[in-house]
Amino acid sequence: MAETPMTLEKLQQLITREPFNRWINFTILKMDADGIEVKTAWREEWVANPDRRHTHGGILAAIIDVAADYAIAAQLGRPVPTIDIHVNYHKAAMPGDLIAKAKVVRMGGQFSTAEAYVYDSESALVASGRGTYFTMPPKRVNGKW
Amino acid sequence: MAETPMTLEKLQQLITREPFNRWINFTILKMDADGIEVKTAWREEWVANPDRRHTHGGILAAIIDVAADYAIAAQLGRPVPTIDIHVNYHKAAMPGDLIAKAKVVRMGGQFSTAEAYVYDSESALVASGRGTYFTMPPKRVNGKW
Amino acid sequence: MAETPMTLEKLQQLITREPFNRWINFTILKMDADGIEVKTAWREEWVANPDRRHTHGGILAAIIDVAADYAIAAQLGRPVPTIDIHVNYHKAAMPGDLIAKAKVVRMGGQFSTAEAYVYDSESALVASGRGTYFTMPPKRVNGKW
Amino acid sequence: MAETPMTLEKLQQLITREPFNRWINFTILKMDADGIEVKTAWREEWVANPDRRHTHGGILAAIIDVAADYAIAAQLGRPVPTIDIHVNYHKAAMPGDLIAKAKVVRMGGQFSTAEAYVYDSESALVASGRGTYFTMPPKRVNGKW
Repeated sequence: MAETPMTLEKLQQLITREPFNRWINFTILKMDADGIEVKTAWREEWVANPDRRHTHGGILAAIIDVAADYAIAAQLGRPVPTIDIHVNYHKAAMPGDLIAKAKVVRMGGQFSTAEAYVYDSESALVASGRGTYFTMPPKRVNGKW
Repeated sequence: MAETPMTLEKLQQLITREPFNRWINFTILKMDADGIEVKTAWREEWVANPDRRHTHGGILAAIIDVAADYAIAAQLGRPVPTIDIHVNYHKAAMPGDLIAKAKVVRMGGQFSTAEAYVYDSESALVASGRGTYFTMPPKRVNGKW
Repeated sequence: MAETPMTLEKLQQLITREPFNRWINFTILKMDADGIEVKTAWREEWVANPDRRHTHGGILAAIIDVAADYAIAAQLGRPVPTIDIHVNYHKAAMPGDLIAKAKVVRMGGQFSTAEAYVYDSESALVASGRGTYFTMPPKRVNGKW
Repeated sequence: MAETPMTLEKLQQLITREPFNRWINFTILKMDADGIEVKTAWREEWVANPDRRHTHGGILAAIIDVAADYAIAAQLGRPVPTIDIHVNYHKAAMPGDLIAKAKVVRMGGQFSTAEAYVYDSESALVASGRGTYFTMPPKRVNGKW
């Protein structure tokens, strides 16, 4: 567990520290015992089909991975390596802000699972999924993963 | 199936037509009976941890989704909606070109599975995964997915 | 949607109709707007390692698939074909009854997602996961899936 | 790695040692540098829908998990704990022997990925998938997974 309690400000600093996360433009809206809630600002580069203009699934997968990872970071004090992710696409996500709600499913000493749900600006569920994360303390990591 | 046989040039046009794919910068290197091979050009925005500088897993998930989808497009004549993806991360992908090899696992009349393997510039496997795609002919789609 | 409202008794009949489900020995404990809750009775054939005696992951995967499928059946009036499943293992499930809680994540006209959590007799989460199901009305299925 | 080289006979002993595997009735047909090939003998308890009589997806998931796990065991000398599995269903598997071909996707010091393809008696692909396994040496496992 984190040596000092995590705050929303510190979690925002950790998430913004990563160049990719800055490009996705994550704002942490909430952090409590149930998990975290983040917002993303849409970018023109996210468009998949140029006629239909929906958001590419790769972006939604990235949002789910980051939201789930930082739900763990909120408890552990640091983001953790992703082992794998599984993402379901439910509905085309049209241009606009997206909200992701994420929570820890099970925290383990070696690997952990967290899940995230992504909603569009009309609160419709557009994608959801889960990630498995490597949560062994860093000192015991031998650098081989 | 496609009315006219797919060519590498036509597949490249289809992939480049999508703004997100242009941002990822996909070049199709090969297209044959075994599947397709694509190359991506690295971007500074892909960096996850700024110290370690490895590529964010969301980008690798996107590459796997696109490569697997276009392995289906090579047979079907068009890219198809993604139902879900599963991605395993094997090794940190350091800055540089990446190569993805993708093939159809099973083509079905309603949904299909394709898989992709992503290699770094030293041919090490960095990520792999599979996607499930909605391959029913478009005329039978009622717009609700 | 189902022509007549689903009852717990009818759902139990549907689940018990399948030989595999009878072998797993499912009892539906609850069915409401939040989803369903099922119980399974442990069998000696479920043992993985004979020294450690924990339940094999294949059985937990089967329980998750069936629970998620029947959470959809509770709304749709019939069990549906599974497109794919993803299962995370959290903790060894020792011999004893297991409880699975399942709910629909998103119901769609063509495919749908449902998730399930499996708990041991001490209410510890032992496995969780999600399935993608083919929910197009049967008359439009051409038998090829 | 295994102290003594793995043989097909030793791998068969390891697989048959587990009660669940005996119930599934696995016979290892082949073990070489490409992976392993196993056969299963069908059981009446595997029937899902009693009219259609196809094999339940939970059984196919179990076969994929065991085949992928033992493709790792063939290299590592022992079966390993499953972290998660992802399974795609391609076609109804009718009563009869099934063949699973499995190989290691990537062997790691902490976690590893293996995949498996399941074929029916007419060599049609009925299901495929992949598992993530905990492959850290047992002495470093603290019993908490």
